[in-house]
Amino acid sequence: MSKDRAITHSFEGEQLESVFVGRRDGQARPTLILIPTVMGVSDLEIGFGRQLVELGYNALVADLFGKEFHGAPRDTMFGEMNRLKSDRAALLRRLEHVLELTRGQPEVQAGQIAVAGYCFGGMCALDLARSGAEISASISFHGLFDPPGLPARKYKTKVAAFHGWDDPMVPPERVVALGQELTEAGADWQIHAYGHVGHGFTNPHASKLQIEGVAYNALAAERSWTSFINLLEELFAEHG
Amino acid sequence: MSKDRAITHSFEGEQLESVFVGRRDGQARPTLILIPTVMGVSDLEIGFGRQLVELGYNALVADLFGKEFHGAPRDTMFGEMNRLKSDRAALLRRLEHVLELTRGQPEVQAGQIAVAGYCFGGMCALDLARSGAEISASISFHGLFDPPGLPARKYKTKVAAFHGWDDPMVPPERVVALGQELTEAGADWQIHAYGHVGHGFTNPHASKLQIEGVAYNALAAERSWTSFINLLEELFAEHG
Repeated sequence: MSKDRAITHSFEGEQLESVFVGRRDGQARPTLILIPTVMGVSDLEIGFGRQLVELGYNALVADLFGKEFHGAPRDTMFGEMNRLKSDRAALLRRLEHVLELTRGQPEVQAGQIAVAGYCFGGMCALDLARSGAEISASISFHGLFDPPGLPARKYKTKVAAFHGWDDPMVPPERVVALGQELTEAGADWQIHAYGHVGHGFTNPHASKLQIEGVAYNALAAERSWTSFINLLEELFAEHG
Repeated sequence: MSKDRAITHSFEGEQLESVFVGRRDGQARPTLILIPTVMGVSDLEIGFGRQLVELGYNALVADLFGKEFHGAPRDTMFGEMNRLKSDRAALLRRLEHVLELTRGQPEVQAGQIAVAGYCFGGMCALDLARSGAEISASISFHGLFDPPGLPARKYKTKVAAFHGWDDPMVPPERVVALGQELTEAGADWQIHAYGHVGHGFTNPHASKLQIEGVAYNALAAERSWTSFINLLEELFAEHG
C-alpha cells in the first residue's frame, strides 16, 4: 500500500538520506516525522511508517546521522549520538532542517505535521516542542527526558511521552521533572508510564543489544501504539 | 439500549442500594463494577454504565454508603467517606461484599469482572487490587493513591490509573510512590498522567463543587475513557 522513496539532503555540509513512506496516491496528507533510535534509519521506523500509511497518514523517517553511517556498528552510532547530544543548539538546527525538508514535500499537508521519536529520537521530538516549533504534536517513545539547557519557549504543540517505568536512562525523578517542565511551559501534555517495562520497548530487537534494562515489551508496544493512534485521530480526524 | 434495576443488599447491618445497568438481552457479559465518587451513586456513574452497555459490557454501580445517604448533602457525604477511609480493613470487607454481590448476578460472566472507580472510588478499586482479589483489572479515575496500611499481597489484576498531574490530593511524589508500590507487588500497571488537569476531571459538574484544584476537563475525560475502553478490549475482546 505504501511507496517508499529516498530523499537526499544536506545539513551544514553533511549528506543525509531520509526515507519518505507515503500512500501510493501521492496526495497531501497529515504527516509524521519519525526520528529513529541511536541506530539511525532502520526497518523498525520504516515499518512504523508503513503502519501509519495504512491508517491514512504519510511518514518521513528522518536521517539525522548521515548517509555514511547507514548500517554502521553500534559503538560508532553511540559515538555519533553523543556527538549530536553534546550540542543541543546544533541538534535543534538539524531538527529544524528536517522539519523544513518535510514541509517541502508535495505529499505533506500544510500545518498537519507531528513528530514522533524513539529513544534518542524521542529526545529530539521533545526538543522540537521545547523550541516552540509549529508542529501539531511531539511524541516520545522511550525517549530521553534530559532538558536541553536552552532558553525556554512557549510550546505550540501537544506532547505525549510513552515511558517504561524501569527505564534505567530515565528514573522516576526525571519523569516528575518532565511533568513540571511541560506544565511550566504551558503545553498540553500526557505521560503514560508502564510498569515492569524498560528502555526500547517498541523494538522487537531491543533485547539483542544486551544492555541492562533495554528490552522489547509487546504489551507496552501495543498500548503505546494504540494511544499514539488515538492522539493522531484527536489531532487530524477532521483532515484524514 | 440498557435496562437498569436496583439491587438492595446489606452489609454488616447497613442497607445499601446499588444499580445494575445491563443490556436488555439479559445475557451474561463481562461486567464492570463502577465505584462512585464521595457523592455516592449518581447519574454520572449510571451514565458511564450506559456507555459501557452500548459497547457490549454490563455494569454494576456500587453503593458503598447506604440507601439513607442517597442524595445527601456534600458535607454529610464527606463525613461518611472519611468514616469509611478511617478503617481500610473494614472498607476492604465492604468492597469484597460488593464483589460477591456482583458475582451473584445472572448477567455477569464468571471470571470477567473489572472494577473502575472515581476519586474515593478509585482508591477503592486500587484497594481491591492490593488485596489480591481475583478481578481482571482495577482502574482508577482521579483516584486517591494513599496506601491502605494493610499487609501487601500479590496482585492478581492489571492496574490502570488515570491521573491529573495538578490534582491537589495526589501530588507527584504520591504518583512515584504508587509506581513503586505496584512494581514491588508485581502488578501489570500503567499510569496515565495529564498536564494542567486537576481532581475530578471526568465529572462535568466537578467545577460546581468550587474546591480548588477540582475541575472537569473534557479532553482528559475523553483520553482516559478511550484508554479505559482500549484496556477492556485488551481484557475481554475474545469474550465480547
